[in-house]
Amino acid sequence: MKRISLVMASGLVAVVAACHGTAPRNETTDAIVEQLQQSALASDAAWEILASLTSEVGPRMAGTPADKLAVRWAVKKMRDLGFDRVWTEPVKFPRWVRTSESAQVFYSVPREPLADDASEMEKRYYNKVRLRKPVGQPLAITALGGSPTTNGRLEAELVQFDTLAALEAASMEDVQNKIVFLSTRMPKTRAGTGYRKTVINRSRGPFVAAEKGALALLIRSVGTDNDRLPHTGMMSGTESGERVPAAAVSNPDADNLMVMLAGEEPVVVRMNLDVGFLVDEYVENSTEEFTEGTSAEATSFNVIGEFDGSADLTEFLLLGAHLDSWDLGTGAIDDGAGVALVMASAKMIADLPVRPRYGVRVVLYANEEQGVYGGKAYAKLHQLELDSHLIGAESDLGADRIYSFRTRVLPQAEPTIAQLARHLGKLGIERDETNLAGGGADVGQMRKLGMPVIDLRQDASRYFDLHHTANDTLDKVKPESLRQNLAAWVTFIYLTANSVAEFGPVDPSD
Amino acid sequence: MKRISLVMASGLVAVVAACHGTAPRNETTDAIVEQLQQSALASDAAWEILASLTSEVGPRMAGTPADKLAVRWAVKKMRDLGFDRVWTEPVKFPRWVRTSESAQVFYSVPREPLADDASEMEKRYYNKVRLRKPVGQPLAITALGGSPTTNGRLEAELVQFDTLAALEAASMEDVQNKIVFLSTRMPKTRAGTGYRKTVINRSRGPFVAAEKGALALLIRSVGTDNDRLPHTGMMSGTESGERVPAAAVSNPDADNLMVMLAGEEPVVVRMNLDVGFLVDEYVENSTEEFTEGTSAEATSFNVIGEFDGSADLTEFLLLGAHLDSWDLGTGAIDDGAGVALVMASAKMIADLPVRPRYGVRVVLYANEEQGVYGGKAYAKLHQLELDSHLIGAESDLGADRIYSFRTRVLPQAEPTIAQLARHLGKLGIERDETNLAGGGADVGQMRKLGMPVIDLRQDASRYFDLHHTANDTLDKVKPESLRQNLAAWVTFIYLTANSVAEFGPVDPSD
Repeated sequence: MKRISLVMASGLVAVVAACHGTAPRNETTDAIVEQLQQSALASDAAWEILASLTSEVGPRMAGTPADKLAVRWAVKKMRDLGFDRVWTEPVKFPRWVRTSESAQVFYSVPREPLADDASEMEKRYYNKVRLRKPVGQPLAITALGGSPTTNGRLEAELVQFDTLAALEAASMEDVQNKIVFLSTRMPKTRAGTGYRKTVINRSRGPFVAAEKGALALLIRSVGTDNDRLPHTGMMSGTESGERVPAAAVSNPDADNLMVMLAGEEPVVVRMNLDVGFLVDEYVENSTEEFTEGTSAEATSFNVIGEFDGSADLTEFLLLGAHLDSWDLGTGAIDDGAGVALVMASAKMIADLPVRPRYGVRVVLYANEEQGVYGGKAYAKLHQLELDSHLIGAESDLGADRIYSFRTRVLPQAEPTIAQLARHLGKLGIERDETNLAGGGADVGQMRKLGMPVIDLRQDASRYFDLHHTANDTLDKVKPESLRQNLAAWVTFIYLTANSVAEFGPVDPSD
Repeated sequence: MKRISLVMASGLVAVVAACHGTAPRNETTDAIVEQLQQSALASDAAWEILASLTSEVGPRMAGTPADKLAVRWAVKKMRDLGFDRVWTEPVKFPRWVRTSESAQVFYSVPREPLADDASEMEKRYYNKVRLRKPVGQPLAITALGGSPTTNGRLEAELVQFDTLAALEAASMEDVQNKIVFLSTRMPKTRAGTGYRKTVINRSRGPFVAAEKGALALLIRSVGTDNDRLPHTGMMSGTESGERVPAAAVSNPDADNLMVMLAGEEPVVVRMNLDVGFLVDEYVENSTEEFTEGTSAEATSFNVIGEFDGSADLTEFLLLGAHLDSWDLGTGAIDDGAGVALVMASAKMIADLPVRPRYGVRVVLYANEEQGVYGGKAYAKLHQLELDSHLIGAESDLGADRIYSFRTRVLPQAEPTIAQLARHLGKLGIERDETNLAGGGADVGQMRKLGMPVIDLRQDASRYFDLHHTANDTLDKVKPESLRQNLAAWVTFIYLTANSVAEFGPVDPSD
């Protein structure tokens, strides 16, 4: 079987007819894949990369010094692992900073004096317990990415809505000059489908609250845990339009607010968010165009490493994960695990006595969290090389077991996909035949141009307990699950990088 | 059967021979207890008190305005519940304050420039990622109660020990001018027995570290969870002797430190604890004697309420829990649940058509957390009334199911205890026959004088996940477990308050 590749690079279009040798016999391939899986299931390679990242760098929010440190770490790690080429590509984005954030709630009922029939003894002691001012409870909050500052202390009554739709339906009078509280709870599912339903509170809430005349927004964390650790995340950062200062409260705090709101007294919240984009112009009129060198613009880097294949071919697999994390945790599951998996699996394949025909390109994307800046920059820079991207995959949903995979490939790739399904089945991974894989936030930017992709889908039941919180740390990663992931990745890489199938281009329209 | 009671109060010793009527027939008692259990298992009474406390007051560290609010709340709640008498008794203690606390760890390996053979492209981008100063990771810490201040920023290399014994065995040279890290992990057990083994790091560690010339102490949290929520708690607060500033790191942070410490680079920690007793004299030479009215001395109150029994008797049951909490959570499991249970169970008994013979005294103790000040003050004030205290019990280990009970009573009380065992057995509660009940931290102060006690022992498996952390919130309490607790408490109260047995005095010597 022959493969015709269209390589378009640097404005130069070259047509190369490459006649590849025969693929290894299936029995040989099966034996190699089985050996790879066994090695991966006994390997600490991904764990060691992940532990290195979380201990030596830790939190690495885009645009911070720790983000720079992460880029240095990644370049050095790729070199140490023996990648054939390592380079970086700049990624620019507006600089959002979190300096401090705090909130208290005031809801103290028993302020009235004792009843008239109180004994003298009661009155005596009770009067000793004077309170000069209201006593607040601290709330565990974190500002949403993209939030403007409160300009110091902001205090107002809380008005609660079950959903964003309920807020949209509310009258201005009910919301004006209040702090809106959106209390929608995210449901827990294996596929993480509850996220899409509730994340709209975070992405759209600050804009809707502003339209209604609110002073600020509190949302129940978009997360499935019951810890006093709020979930941060971006509001629709690149969108123009007025937004209010906005923060997430932890689920236990949200529950506590609901108890208070069921009472008869007003619930008053005091917030102080010292956060924001470094120039207000950005907030009010975002264009995604920034002047080079201003402090309001930050630069980070996509870090890219390649291992060559055994044949002299232009095409390669694109393996992606994002290097940045939010600032609250150490970014172990989001997305240190992905970083470790794509690096470790590429390395395992490169260390084979005979490498597969195609090479692999590992891309560690910059600033996924604040708007997929790295993924978009990569797609823009490499769009003319689209046809060199044989197939892509991304790891960005934690480190729990992969339970399913799905593709977006041409029908003629079916023999290879069937072979992949057979081998992944041994790892407990079922095939989803919809052929509607998305490719992930970053790698998916190339899929939108027509690059075929495969999704190796992780169990997300636990992911949204930890996602974007201080609890995203190494101890949450189960070594045996990480190994199962690694086994799936080497299986995918080996079989596709040795395949003579045409996977794409796929229809970029949907 | 007759009962002879010695009532000693206010310096006056009176001998009262009280001849009680016959106890209700067993069948009647059984029917009443069964009805009480059914009511309790369907009751939200404890939950409502607990939700009121956690929403209207929340965190209530001893000596804070919130502690005063809690006293007001408790007096009002007891009055609202219809207690026959409500009063307060002052409790004084040194004022320890937590103003702010933070720490960072510095452990960044890849500071060296790229290798000489780096490509021009690599060098160009890598050099762009300059770091002007070391990048630290924030540590989730909380100061230990009783800690002195660091007087601003304190920075030193970390030296780790597996146990306090290992620190004690270390040479001065290894510890001097460093920050000690005690990494002992608390094991999880149903009876909470791992606590005693590891809490010594917290209570004694700061003193041992000072002896060895350390600058400060970090301990792995005395807790069984994996959340970024450190566990606070008191060092041996009333002990004189030099101590270093001390804080607990969360378990995930401790794990992260262990990864760093396994590396080759030094691990440097920067701490800033703005905490301490309000006068240093206290720290250096504690005497438990304080001048009335100084700001270094705080006053709180034991809040006490009584329901009378049906007979005109001087004796009563002592039901205790502590009203104060640490400042990080809302004190739902420690000890809001206990407060709710003793109030709700006393109320259920008082609402019976015919009350049992003896009355109940509910004591909500002040400042248990910082040194059992309320329990000790109560025992001191009421020691001459010892014989009025028929039997005592305390609830202070959360709100999970009671699985066992044990007593410390005279052998002649066996018929009542056997009856109690039979009824508690219906709630899944087994009898521990050791007869070595402790009575709890506060109520146990009277046990040490000879008062008989019963321990209703809760499953503590989950308790030390939450204990003394921000995660101690209402959502952690399972309504059905709280109801089972309530059913056990009303069973205990009814059967002992209607008994003609002599439970004590018990031997105070052990």
